[in-house]
This record gives sequence, structure tokens and C-alpha cells, in this order.
Amino acid sequence: MRANVFRGTGKFGIEEVEKPRAEAGEAIVKITLTTICGTDLHIVRGEYPVEPGRIIGHEPVGVIEELGVGVTGYAVGDRVLIGAITPCGQCLGCLSGHLSQCGHGEGYRALGGWRLGNTIQGTQAEYVRIPHAQANLAKIPPELRDEQVVLLADIASTGISGAESGGVRIGDAVVVFAQGPIGLCATAGARLMGASLIIGVDGDETRLRFARQLGADVVLDYRQQDVVAEVKRLTGGGADVAIEALGTQQTFESALRCLRPGGTLSSLGVYSGKLELPYDAFAAGLGDHRIVATLCPGGKERMRRLMGLVQSKRLDLTPLLTHSFALKDIDEAYALFGERRDGVIKVAIRP
Amino acid sequence: MRANVFRGTGKFGIEEVEKPRAEAGEAIVKITLTTICGTDLHIVRGEYPVEPGRIIGHEPVGVIEELGVGVTGYAVGDRVLIGAITPCGQCLGCLSGHLSQCGHGEGYRALGGWRLGNTIQGTQAEYVRIPHAQANLAKIPPELRDEQVVLLADIASTGISGAESGGVRIGDAVVVFAQGPIGLCATAGARLMGASLIIGVDGDETRLRFARQLGADVVLDYRQQDVVAEVKRLTGGGADVAIEALGTQQTFESALRCLRPGGTLSSLGVYSGKLELPYDAFAAGLGDHRIVATLCPGGKERMRRLMGLVQSKRLDLTPLLTHSFALKDIDEAYALFGERRDGVIKVAIRP
Amino acid sequence: MRANVFRGTGKFGIEEVEKPRAEAGEAIVKITLTTICGTDLHIVRGEYPVEPGRIIGHEPVGVIEELGVGVTGYAVGDRVLIGAITPCGQCLGCLSGHLSQCGHGEGYRALGGWRLGNTIQGTQAEYVRIPHAQANLAKIPPELRDEQVVLLADIASTGISGAESGGVRIGDAVVVFAQGPIGLCATAGARLMGASLIIGVDGDETRLRFARQLGADVVLDYRQQDVVAEVKRLTGGGADVAIEALGTQQTFESALRCLRPGGTLSSLGVYSGKLELPYDAFAAGLGDHRIVATLCPGGKERMRRLMGLVQSKRLDLTPLLTHSFALKDIDEAYALFGERRDGVIKVAIRP
Amino acid sequence: MRANVFRGTGKFGIEEVEKPRAEAGEAIVKITLTTICGTDLHIVRGEYPVEPGRIIGHEPVGVIEELGVGVTGYAVGDRVLIGAITPCGQCLGCLSGHLSQCGHGEGYRALGGWRLGNTIQGTQAEYVRIPHAQANLAKIPPELRDEQVVLLADIASTGISGAESGGVRIGDAVVVFAQGPIGLCATAGARLMGASLIIGVDGDETRLRFARQLGADVVLDYRQQDVVAEVKRLTGGGADVAIEALGTQQTFESALRCLRPGGTLSSLGVYSGKLELPYDAFAAGLGDHRIVATLCPGGKERMRRLMGLVQSKRLDLTPLLTHSFALKDIDEAYALFGERRDGVIKVAIRP
Repeated sequence: MRANVFRGTGKFGIEEVEKPRAEAGEAIVKITLTTICGTDLHIVRGEYPVEPGRIIGHEPVGVIEELGVGVTGYAVGDRVLIGAITPCGQCLGCLSGHLSQCGHGEGYRALGGWRLGNTIQGTQAEYVRIPHAQANLAKIPPELRDEQVVLLADIASTGISGAESGGVRIGDAVVVFAQGPIGLCATAGARLMGASLIIGVDGDETRLRFARQLGADVVLDYRQQDVVAEVKRLTGGGADVAIEALGTQQTFESALRCLRPGGTLSSLGVYSGKLELPYDAFAAGLGDHRIVATLCPGGKERMRRLMGLVQSKRLDLTPLLTHSFALKDIDEAYALFGERRDGVIKVAIRP
Repeated sequence: MRANVFRGTGKFGIEEVEKPRAEAGEAIVKITLTTICGTDLHIVRGEYPVEPGRIIGHEPVGVIEELGVGVTGYAVGDRVLIGAITPCGQCLGCLSGHLSQCGHGEGYRALGGWRLGNTIQGTQAEYVRIPHAQANLAKIPPELRDEQVVLLADIASTGISGAESGGVRIGDAVVVFAQGPIGLCATAGARLMGASLIIGVDGDETRLRFARQLGADVVLDYRQQDVVAEVKRLTGGGADVAIEALGTQQTFESALRCLRPGGTLSSLGVYSGKLELPYDAFAAGLGDHRIVATLCPGGKERMRRLMGLVQSKRLDLTPLLTHSFALKDIDEAYALFGERRDGVIKVAIRP
Repeated sequence: MRANVFRGTGKFGIEEVEKPRAEAGEAIVKITLTTICGTDLHIVRGEYPVEPGRIIGHEPVGVIEELGVGVTGYAVGDRVLIGAITPCGQCLGCLSGHLSQCGHGEGYRALGGWRLGNTIQGTQAEYVRIPHAQANLAKIPPELRDEQVVLLADIASTGISGAESGGVRIGDAVVVFAQGPIGLCATAGARLMGASLIIGVDGDETRLRFARQLGADVVLDYRQQDVVAEVKRLTGGGADVAIEALGTQQTFESALRCLRPGGTLSSLGVYSGKLELPYDAFAAGLGDHRIVATLCPGGKERMRRLMGLVQSKRLDLTPLLTHSFALKDIDEAYALFGERRDGVIKVAIRP
Repeated sequence: MRANVFRGTGKFGIEEVEKPRAEAGEAIVKITLTTICGTDLHIVRGEYPVEPGRIIGHEPVGVIEELGVGVTGYAVGDRVLIGAITPCGQCLGCLSGHLSQCGHGEGYRALGGWRLGNTIQGTQAEYVRIPHAQANLAKIPPELRDEQVVLLADIASTGISGAESGGVRIGDAVVVFAQGPIGLCATAGARLMGASLIIGVDGDETRLRFARQLGADVVLDYRQQDVVAEVKRLTGGGADVAIEALGTQQTFESALRCLRPGGTLSSLGVYSGKLELPYDAFAAGLGDHRIVATLCPGGKERMRRLMGLVQSKRLDLTPLLTHSFALKDIDEAYALFGERRDGVIKVAIRP
């Protein structure tokens, strides 16, 4: 089969590789739609460590091709969505509810649940092997198209969990820093949870327009405004929840400074190096802020829950799929996505 | 001033009574809009015990007329919304977060927070005296009209808290039994909290139509359908949360039977006599259902939070204010509301 | 192998049956210690439905005898504790945290997690087959003896979860109705969670003595006292949490009447027929009580957590193992346990 | 009356000042026992900003001397404990449960609840004026001595809230960095909440001995051991909860590094300058750690709850009151406490 294989910093492309086979508890899924994620860019740029030879990609929609021994309740030909995180359900991490810290049968493992395109072969390919298939194959309701569900695998699950981890309550004021794919989904998540005032922050016109579309009541362009001061003014003293979805010192610190006393910072960004927590912002003197870092939750229960929102038309992320490429044109797709050209938010890849 | 005074079962009407004065910590509010609540019907019918001589009513919007000693941050002339529940904030109940069980400075007191039109003079009058004013006067943003906020005082706060107490999560399936004023707000609450499938149940065409308008994806008429079976079919095994908003054995039991194993019944109805909890429905064998009974939360923080939703246009309850009367025509208003004539949902009263 | 087989109401006893073999994902465990549970009495008396031919028992400690394909991280000879509930970890129920409502790969199933000695062969035998072994085998630290951990499988997990579901907070007043094996563990649970006043209720001197030993500050004998009035007096108005661990109308209703406004009833008892919820007790007028029914949580993470408490000497349930029998004397053991003779709390069975 | 007055960095001492009088809603309390807190040292050293002329101190036990208008349910002569935090109960902060961010009637205010010895006159005096007395006077049960309750006002409430904010669950492994007065109470809090393994860290023999006495199963001396490595070894991969009770970069970072994937850092220390959050420790790659900063909760409900633990002998902090001084010898008391001489943990001050 053809697949996009990582070969070291800056080197990747379509290769012919062997089609995988399902062992006990696994499934082979024929990919019908996948995407490129910002994390994939980190990988090909050498900023996130992955073994050469790895097939990249972790946002899969497809059709069951083969089922290993012990996987029940599914049939070859079933259309399925699989989360970017594929928890085993049977380790200490999973059994205590930390699916993203899955230890594959044993204890907790940092990032353990994220395996596809990271520690095992990924989804930018014709076929993918899914571990712990029983916990991870979410059947797609017939009335939903691939395009309607593919973004649930990662960015929607992550972004919405940013609102959930932030503990957004009915009537809260929420500010979301950065309106890239995950930030836009966090904005949608804040809306889904009943925030009364949602403020989207970015420096890109296109993204701010999408922010409005997905639920922001107000958008702020950090190039033109003192965002912290404006959030304080709009909220009458500070946001209940700030969601950070970029991963820089500046957005992190601004998010913290936007909070009311006792507010919560929900952090989704991927930071590199050291973050500085300014004393006065963190603790408001002695304070009682909360900072919560969340990794995408996965598993078929999560995917089913999110597909329900698409079915009832409470969540429509199809506008974010701004571009589409065949798998053979993956180089072009990475180039466009990496350079953020042509108003791209997400690119779809069709094997 | 003129006020609607309860004089014993079946007896009430407009009388001239003395205008109240504010003592320390209190405020006098000139009522500009109030309503009749289903509980008021229970009172005049002798089904809920209230002392003769009591002015009825507990959903007030008005203008501050006088402020007692020690109330700070307000001015005469401020437009305010006051919750049906007026917690003191300083008793064991309030300090532990049970505002509806306010003990007026001391311990917990069952229903203690509900005083207006119950244990002290109410709001179907030209003026009302508000105890613990500092905790209860919520300033109305200038851009909001009285009609947009009056229903937040009780039915919206109660109905939405039904969804909150039920612990509705993103993607949940929720069924709401009875689509009267509170049930309709519970439906709106389930939508605000991100339910993916909301099923409204009633036996009245008008109310089912309102249910759709406020967020129900599906409506079921119990006169024409086996509701429990249909909910189980639609949800693939049972609702995550059932909200009961009527207060009868039948709706309570049906709500319980609609739940998936481990689901939550949020109970808002006012029951009389004994409820039977059928063993098989309650415990699903041994089960782990939750049953949560919620009384309207109050206080200015709650009111501010709900007004925020109106400001951002996430909550519009004005269609529920189907009729409007002058205070002098209160008899007519009670008759229409009590007989549920002319598609009435809520009646506004203007002093 | 020898096993205690149920043959219909009133009929059970030791038989020679075939030793089980492990299929994929399963393990065979050689039982070194098990017990008789109150539920087993319900089974042999025909009060809880189980198929004839079923081996009874669900509280196992033993040594791994055989491992099926795909079970990793264990070796034959490992000493293990297995919870009474054996969740799969991979269904909608498990993935959303409702391990006791495990659907065995699919959706929620009422009581689905309880399989041992219920829907599959149980533990009063020389060997038992454990499904979903990866999620359920909890290795026993070498310094702990079988007697120290066997009661964690069911009664400790259930009783302590009664305190957890009740949401006991530091400084709460908690009343526990019935001080049988589960009630005693609920008493221990309330103490572990930091209750300040724990009131144990029973009508048996021996059990009240054990209640004091496990953490009750005060014990009440319902034969001699008006328990509800005394709880209200001791707590200054009502308990924060009441735990019901028997399953009768009287204990359920008394537990509800003992609560302060806004308190929580945590229900562990197994009821038969219909329960009556008196209006005035349930809703305290309109009230906001919570009623939570909890079934024993299971899984190796839970077992590990509880064994940690035994290791640090915060939990010692060995005094509750009042009697011990060889498997061949199981009839005698059931007789003693069923008649509650000789101060029996729990009986140990040694194959 | 005599009082300890702050007069600028390094300058403070006993002066004769006017005895306060109670206005509406206030109470005057004759102090019978108070203490010196670490924060008081920050004040006199000029490290925490307070106006010259301020009477220092915020841990009061005393007898009601005078009651202002509107304070009900109390009598002159009642013995009372008052929390270091004196919330109003009637602002947005208090009504939403953030008592420590009390806004005095209005919105949230950072640290707003801490007024005694900070923004209003404190307790190292013969009398103190208590604002919002209705919310803050907690009657002391007659059987409890002043020495048994005085430490509940601040250090016990703060330390225990560190365990509560950390979300300690039954069976958790908890590490507490620094075993000063607050860290020792955090250790006691972890024990009260049912942790199975509690690890106390400090570099002082006396404090490590107290740590064992208050609940630590293991103590680690950071001068002799690699604490992070040892915690990882003892917990089999990382603590569920780490509590930081000192306020330095090193303890904060070590606490973070001790956590298992998905664990919680509860921060009680008072930091100065900037904190660095190392990327790898914070986010374990992408991670999902939580960091929660907590300020002492207050109010009479909290004080009552903690006194209940003393009554039932689950909490005994009297050993921490290592030294006692008359108010007139306050200089000597500050010297001893500031230099941490003679094994001092807390000093009592008797006016």
C-alpha cells in the first residue's frame, strides 16, 4: 500500500509499504479520509521526536477491512471513526479515567494514549492498524459524511476538552487565545457549554472570521489591541476561564493575566523550553488560580458523543476543512498547510 | 400601595396596603414587571401553606426606591432583577453553597431561601421589600428590557439548574418530562450545556411546539406514544439524564425508567403525598442511578450569569410571556393562567 | 476440580467439575481464599436469579495458573486480587467511567460488570476463569497476606464507594444505617474521607461494637432509640450524608429523614419490591436532596488503591473475617452465615 | 487597648491604641488567644505590603464583647473562632463559592477575603473588630480549649484545603513539600482525605518528626536524598498529588517533577518574582497536569467543620503550638519565630 513515511528531519513522502495485518484485539481500517495536523508539521520539522520509518497521521475515518481475534460487535465493511488517542481501557491510567495517559495494560504513561503516527504506524496511508480496537472503533451513523466527522478525531476532541477541563459553567465569560484549528474548536466548546461571553483572540483576519462563525461574541486582534486590558474591560474584571491554544510564553502569560481572581487557565498549547509563570499573574498575590493542561481524550465513547453533536447540528466543523488533496499529493498539502497559505485551516487527505 | 393579598383558600385580590420601608440591609424596589408562577396557583388553591395576609408573587423586576443602612454599591433609581430565592449569604447553608437552603444567618433551613410571597411579602404589588439586599440586587444592563429578564428570576434559574444538577455533559442524551414553563427552561438548559439529543415530552401541542423552539430535537406526545420505549429506541438504550418538571408519580417513574444504567434523574417537580420508587427502575437490579432534587438557586451572581446569556442572545425566553395584564386585573390573569387557556405559558403583571 | 454449584432454590453443594481453560484475554486463577457474600445467600434462597449449574462466589484471592493470549505484564505464579466486578474497560460504560455498568465491549449494561458467580462461573471453587484479565488482575504486594486483602474485592470496595458517592467532605456528619459487612466498610469509608462525626445504626450489639472499632463516634441501637430524632439532635439539624446499607423501606426512609436540607443519601442496599419516597422527607418541601445508588466499582486500579490503604495500616478489615471453613465444609459455612450465628460477620473459604 | 502595630519595614511593637467599636453588621471580639503567622514575618520584613499603622495578626480566638446592629443569633460573652479570611458572603465572589476572593459586596477581589491584619486592624491586640460578623463568628463548643482551635483559623484551613484542592482520593499517593506549619497541616489533610501513601519532604529533623506525627508514612530529607527519584520509586511512577507549601522555584519544580502523568500540583506557597515552569515537567510532553493555587478558605461554616474534627479527635494540632508568649513580649516572640529557634513551629500570643 502507499503511505506517507517520515525519514528524518525535513524528509518524508509517499512510499510503497506492506499492508498491515490484524493480530488479536486489533483491526485493519481502510482509510477513506484523514488530515494533516499541526503536530505532523512538528514531526517533519524535527521538533517532535519520532522514529524514521514512521507513517505519519492520526485523524482517521475509514472502513473496517479486517478484524483480529476477540474484537466483537463489528463487521468488515463498517464505517468507523477512530480518535487520535487510542486508549487500551485496561491499564491503571485508563481505569482511573486518564485515557490520554494510557499505559497499554500497565500503569500511567505520559502521552501513552497517543500512538497513531507517533509510536506506531499512522493514518496518512491506505490502511492503518488500530490497537485495542474494541475500545476505539466508533461506528459512524449512516447519515453523516466523512467530512462531517473527520475533525472530531483530534482537534474537536482536544478543543472541546479545553472548555471542559476549564470547567466552563453556564453564563461564564471565556477568552480563547489563538484561533487555529484547536482554538476554533475550543471556541465552539465554550459555546456548547453555555458560556455567555466568548472572546476570540488572534492576529489573522481569516481566523478571527472563523472564530465568529464558531461562537465568539467578540474577536480581538492582538496586533491592534491591548488584549488583557480589553478582556478585563469587557468582562468587568476578568474572564472566568481562559483557554490557551498556541503554546508560547506570550499567549500563556496573557491568558493568565486575563483571569478574574480565582479563574481557570486551560492550556492546550504545546510548549517548548521553559515557561515563566509571573508571580503576580499566577497567584494574584496569594491567589487561587487553577492551571489545567489537557491532552485530547479518545476512545469510542468520546467519538460517539461528539458525533451526536454533529447529528443534532450543534457542531459543524466542515468549514474548517478548507482544502483537500489526494494522498499522492501529500507534499503539496504539507507545503500549503505549513506555510498557512490561502486561508488554510485544515487539509483533508484522501487515500 | 396596591397589592394582591392572599386571604385563605380561594380568596385573594387587590387591596390597599401600607408601603414598606427599608431597614438595615434591606431595599425597597418599585416593581415594574412581575408574573404569576404555578406555585402561586398552589397557594391560592390552598395546596401550599401560606399565612393569610401574605402578598403573593416572587418574580420581580423593578427600580430601587429606597436603600437601608449598610447596602453599598447601589443607588436609588438602579434597575434591578431579584431572584425568587433571596439568600442571606451568611449562614451555614449559604456559606457551603446551598443558597436555596438559606438559614437566615444560622444553619440550614429547608426552603429557607424562598421567602418572597411565601414567608414575607411578595411581588404582585407596587413595591416590595428585599431582605439581604446586598446579596440579591442584580443590576440590569441598560440594553435589556424588563420582558427579557423577568423570567430569569425563577423559571429559568430553576429549569436551567435542572440541567446543571443533572450533570449534563457535552454529547449527552437528555429527556425532559413536561414542557410547562420550568420544563421548557430545562430544555433550554440542556441545550445550553451541550446535550446532543434533547427529547421533550408533553401532551399539549402548544407546549411541544415551544419545546422545539427552545431546543428539543424530538418531541413526544405521551397521549400517542409509549414514551419510555421510544426514548430507549432513540437513545440506543436509555437517556444519560432525565429531567422531571411536573411532579406526578407517573412522570417521575417514567423518567426513571428512561435512564440508561448509571444515569441521572434530575427532579424539579413539586410532589404531594408519597412517591413510589419501583425497585427495578430505581436500581436496575442493584444499579447506580442518581436522583437529584433541585430548588431554584438565587442570588445576584446567579442572576448576572443568566442575564449574560440573554445579552449574548443564547437565551431568549420572551416568547414564553404569552399574556400581559395590569395588576388591577390580577383576578383575570389568575383565571386564564389557572385554566391554561389560550395557549398561555406565562403571564406578565404590570403594577 | 471441586466447586460449590447452585442447583436451584435451596440446592447447592460441592461437585466435581471440569477445570476451566483460558482463552484469549482471560486468565485462570487458582483460588487461595474466597468468602461467602450476602448476595450468595439471596442466590441460594432463590431471591436473586441465577442459572442452575452456576458456581457461586465473587470475592477471589489466588495465584495465576494460566494466562490467555494477549494478557501481558503478568506471570504464572503471581498472587492476585480480583474485584467482584470485572469490567472490560472497552465498552461505552467503562470508557465513560461506569465500570459497574460494563457492557462487555458494547454499550451500558445494568449490573453488567458483575459476572463472577452471577452470569459466569464464580470463585467458591479451586479455580476460576477471569474475563478481561488485563483489566482485572491486581498484583498483591508480597508483605500482605490473603486475609488482609480478600474483603477488598467486594464489601470494602462497595462500602467505601458508598462514602465516596455520598460526597463525604472533611468535617461532615455522616450516619450509616445497618452495620453488616458493607455498612461496616461504609463506616470505615466515612472515616477515611475525613468525616467529623460518624453515627453507626444497627440493632445488634456485636455489630455496633465493630462499628465503633471501624470508626463510628457514636452508635445507635434502633431497638432502643428514636434514631431520626437522635441524629438530628447530635448533628444540630441533620446529617450531611446518610448511607443506607441494608435495603428495607424503613432504613431507606429513616436515612432520608435524617438528612439536613440539601443532604445526600447514598444507597447501597438491595431493595425488593417498591420503595416509597415520602414527599416531606424526599423534598423537604421542594428541597434539594440527592439520592445516589452505587454498585461496587471494580478493576485492578481500584483494587490497587485499596491495597495501598492496607499497606499503610489505614484500613484493617481482618477482624471482620470472623470464621473460616474449608471448601468441603461449604454447607456448614452457609448455615452459620445465613443464620448469623456466633457473631459472624464474614466467613472465609479455603479451597 | 494594647496592640502590636506595624510602623514600616523592621519597625513594630506594642502601642496603646483606641479600642474599636462595632458598627452595623460588625462585632468586637476580646482576644483570648492569637498567634504569629509566617505572613506576619513577611509584613514586618517589608516583603508583603501593608500600611504603616496597621495592627498585625489574623488568627483569633476570643469572646464577643459587643455586637453591631443586625448581627443575630449571638450574645455578648460567646466564645468564638474567626477565620483568617472574613468573607462577606454577599458579593459575586462569595456567592459563587470563592470566599477567599471576596469583593466586599461587589465583584471578585484578589485576596479580598483576607482583611484582618492586612487591610484592616488585626488580632495581635486586646480587641479586634470583625466585619461581616454574621458570616464569620463560629461558636466554640464548650469542651474545646482555645489552644485546640486557634490553629484552625489559618494554617489548618489552608493546609487542609491544599489536600482538598489537590483532589486527594481514597488510596492516593501524596507528597508534601516543606513541613512548616502549613505543610504539616497539608500532611494532616492528606491523611484525613484517605491517602494511602503520604510522603513528607523537608530538611529539618524536627519538622520531619512532626510530619510523621501528623500522618506522613515516609519522610524524605532533601539534603540527603534525590527527592524526585525517591518519590518516583516509592510510588511506582509518580505521586497522584503533590502539595507545595514553601514558595520557592526549587520546591515548585520538584513537586511538578514528582507527579505521575495526569497528576495534580496543589500550590500553597507564596512565591516572589517569577516561577519557571519547565516544559517537560509541566506538560509531560503534551501532558494533562493540573496546577491549583489555593488561598485559605474562611467563614464560620469552614471553622465549624474543622472544629468538628477536633471534637472527634481526628485532628490534634496542639503539639504545633510549641511556644507561648504574653502580648507584651511580642518582640521576643517574633525574634524566636523569625529565627526558627528552639524547634519552634507556632507561637501562641495571649493578650
